[in-house]
Amino acid sequence: MSDPKKRAKLPRGFVDLGPADIAATEKMLAEIKKSYELYGFEALATPLVEYTDALGKFLPDQERPNEGVFSFQDDDEQWLSLRYDLTAPLARYVAENFDRLPKPYRSYRVGPVFRNEKPGPGRFRQFMQFDADTVGTSSVAADVELCMMAADTLEWLGIKRGDYVIKVNSRKVLDGVMGAIGLGGEENAGRRLTVLRAIDKYDRLGAEGVRALLGKGRKDESGDFTKGADLRPDAIIKVLELFSIVDWVAQSKKGNPPFQAGVDSGAIDDRKAEHIGFEGVIGGVKAAVGSSSTGLDGLAELSRIWVLIQSAGYDDGRIRIDPSVVRGLEYYTGPVFEADLTFETKDEDGRTVRFGSVGGGGRYDGLVGCFRGEDVPATGFSIGVSRLYAALKAINSPIVSASVQRGPVIVLVLDQGEIAHYQTFVTQLRNANIVAELYLGSSGMNAQLKYADKRGSICAIIQGSHERAKGEVAIRDLVLGAELAASTKDRADYLDLRTRAQFSRPEAELVEAVKEVLARHP
Amino acid sequence: MSDPKKRAKLPRGFVDLGPADIAATEKMLAEIKKSYELYGFEALATPLVEYTDALGKFLPDQERPNEGVFSFQDDDEQWLSLRYDLTAPLARYVAENFDRLPKPYRSYRVGPVFRNEKPGPGRFRQFMQFDADTVGTSSVAADVELCMMAADTLEWLGIKRGDYVIKVNSRKVLDGVMGAIGLGGEENAGRRLTVLRAIDKYDRLGAEGVRALLGKGRKDESGDFTKGADLRPDAIIKVLELFSIVDWVAQSKKGNPPFQAGVDSGAIDDRKAEHIGFEGVIGGVKAAVGSSSTGLDGLAELSRIWVLIQSAGYDDGRIRIDPSVVRGLEYYTGPVFEADLTFETKDEDGRTVRFGSVGGGGRYDGLVGCFRGEDVPATGFSIGVSRLYAALKAINSPIVSASVQRGPVIVLVLDQGEIAHYQTFVTQLRNANIVAELYLGSSGMNAQLKYADKRGSICAIIQGSHERAKGEVAIRDLVLGAELAASTKDRADYLDLRTRAQFSRPEAELVEAVKEVLARHP
Repeated sequence: MSDPKKRAKLPRGFVDLGPADIAATEKMLAEIKKSYELYGFEALATPLVEYTDALGKFLPDQERPNEGVFSFQDDDEQWLSLRYDLTAPLARYVAENFDRLPKPYRSYRVGPVFRNEKPGPGRFRQFMQFDADTVGTSSVAADVELCMMAADTLEWLGIKRGDYVIKVNSRKVLDGVMGAIGLGGEENAGRRLTVLRAIDKYDRLGAEGVRALLGKGRKDESGDFTKGADLRPDAIIKVLELFSIVDWVAQSKKGNPPFQAGVDSGAIDDRKAEHIGFEGVIGGVKAAVGSSSTGLDGLAELSRIWVLIQSAGYDDGRIRIDPSVVRGLEYYTGPVFEADLTFETKDEDGRTVRFGSVGGGGRYDGLVGCFRGEDVPATGFSIGVSRLYAALKAINSPIVSASVQRGPVIVLVLDQGEIAHYQTFVTQLRNANIVAELYLGSSGMNAQLKYADKRGSICAIIQGSHERAKGEVAIRDLVLGAELAASTKDRADYLDLRTRAQFSRPEAELVEAVKEVLARHP
Repeated sequence: MSDPKKRAKLPRGFVDLGPADIAATEKMLAEIKKSYELYGFEALATPLVEYTDALGKFLPDQERPNEGVFSFQDDDEQWLSLRYDLTAPLARYVAENFDRLPKPYRSYRVGPVFRNEKPGPGRFRQFMQFDADTVGTSSVAADVELCMMAADTLEWLGIKRGDYVIKVNSRKVLDGVMGAIGLGGEENAGRRLTVLRAIDKYDRLGAEGVRALLGKGRKDESGDFTKGADLRPDAIIKVLELFSIVDWVAQSKKGNPPFQAGVDSGAIDDRKAEHIGFEGVIGGVKAAVGSSSTGLDGLAELSRIWVLIQSAGYDDGRIRIDPSVVRGLEYYTGPVFEADLTFETKDEDGRTVRFGSVGGGGRYDGLVGCFRGEDVPATGFSIGVSRLYAALKAINSPIVSASVQRGPVIVLVLDQGEIAHYQTFVTQLRNANIVAELYLGSSGMNAQLKYADKRGSICAIIQGSHERAKGEVAIRDLVLGAELAASTKDRADYLDLRTRAQFSRPEAELVEAVKEVLARHP
């Protein structure tokens, strides 16, 4: 090649996956698929590329339109983009095929999505999502069903009840609180976003951290200062009322006094332990939304949701109402939900943390309407596959741990002139459905056996001139061979071991002998 | 939404896939995977995006570097591209991980690739490939193995022996012929490409068409003129010698005289019927390469390949040497192969044509070396999944025809106030592993039953106030229901049919009753 030497480098924020990760991910996706199909969702695959204007400007946590999206022009100078989620393409698909689809239309989709962002630990530019959406119904039963399905799916994947929770809130509640503290209207969109982001950090920072972010701002452990929303003290208390009761519960469970000194005790000092649960949570929400009609709508929505959750029996901790759930996307219009893993794990710095969110979603009644000029109600749930995969690894789920495969049977090539004959051994094995390959390199016997080890092989086939003269093959059990190599001759069964670790058979008995060896190491 | 109405349009050259296509494709991919794994290849997944400079300029049939590739800059202004095949990313991966990989390294990869080209019938901008490659060996046994695997894979997918052929050639033969007609060297690269493209059209145009393209040029049926390579008559005869014998065989089989009047008879009039087969083919190649040492190398390579094919028993028509195989990619350095389906089908204009190529590959000893500054021998085979899928559909393979799924059991909602109670029916069914859903729209009973039909459901659950009062549910068999609707009352078993098409049961027997109905329609 006349090219100068090129740089062999995986692009930043992207990953290569080897066989074990691929096999485990496939098993995991098959389980999710079974769970989604049980709920009546049917598969849809849209391309990875859409017209840029069809994707819209709904990327989470981005203020400038199309920031964070990979975009390019085709040979006709049309702007195209890599999809950044699986919801915008669904909206395009439904709008384009509206008349011929059954309604409500229930679909699931799985595949990679892309973000043009600075990559970091656990933050990739290509990652996989698995979504289910119901389009064409405004019934909260559709939202509740997604939450139930999320819970079922986590359990199918081996996450135990109690190790996860599906949290539900309503955007209308949050909008109501915004109205109640004077942050309604287009002109307050920026400050509203700052407040929502502060609320969203509740899980990580607690009430005190959120209070700081709602006020002047917060200095984190590293000394970095994040500017706050600069709300007035009474507005801060109103917002904190939303989830103060949740904080109270969490603190009680840890055996701590319910409130930290000086923090938000004013807002909630009249609450009692018996308020815990749905009624308690709703009490906080009621206080926070005041007389806002949007907020009261949200409150009614949460009550209807709770009735359905109870009747399906998911009120046993699997699903709960949690007013701190924000979800980043601008387009949500009603119920929003989040799937959180509650067990503890270590973060990148070795600190113990709760695993946190592995998925979420919500109602987006306006998104399909962007194409059709009329609102089409819709709701959806999305699993972050890579993150969930990391969680399954952390709990050593059988889904991901049982996917180590053994290597092929290796037929050694000790005489390149006999390669056609060696090839017939491989063909016989494959015809018997045994994974097998001819050693294709040019190294000697020891290197060939090392290659077999590296591939995780159980068995190697050896035929030197000695065996060939007798019409025989030697079968080597690589597992026993390794054991033999680590033994001494004093071992009682040394001779027996040696006999079993490598033995000769007539060529015609090759397949049978290999099956024998493979059966020793199931 | 304040957005103006957006255009809901699938980008040109991309497709959406529904549940039947997705299920069939998955089954097909699972079979290919099993076949590749049986040959000892292990899975690898690289990202869809690579640094542009790592992809190189090897796109088939493109003269300008990077033409036909979708490229864009990331937030650090680095140029990235969507992969256009699965070989260039493998070369990057192997070069980057060279020291820790077993050698030879055998991997398979499957996934979408992208081309920034004018789309057309059967020509997409995103399509799927399934590749296997062996890196780190120059043995032709690796090439032969890929050909054998290609044949096995097609048979696993239900393509009968005789309906396909794997054709093998060597680039060295073609290079030798180029040298022999004075087209060696960098300065003739352009004309060489024109000649190779002409040879590549042999299957479609026959000897006469190729002869025209090697000379002044060719006018096709529509009157369009393609400029030719402008070779001298003796050079044209030399090139035609390459596959004249093949043409001869084809003509004989059709019962036609071996040569059309006035066409290439000068070159091959001394051949006899007994030359058919490998010897005959090799005879033509010998004449064409003359004394070119590269050409003679190629000839020797084809002979070694043929020995291996024979000893594996694939010389029964599954694999054959065919000097007309070119394969477009500039980077091939040795054996090249192509998987062709030989059965007939209709093209877009309704004409009967052979189905043609569904995959191919070859040896590319220089590609990994672009990164490492030393040649790393490698060979690979790629299946065009979408094209093969079309072929399986054309022959009605069970792989693709048996994947129609039945719809979920639909629980009708006749009283929105009772939705929580209806939900419990759905939960019971799902707990029994029966795909079920609650009707989530707001339409009346007839529309709900139409929805169930549209979903392909077998069974609907109905509970109106009448049934509810008695603690019962009505089970509707939608298949028998349709039969009933098409019958008249004179039918002998009309009453029995009506009884079986819809019946009531106590709520507690819901799951059992649904199982009964589902079992009627396996």
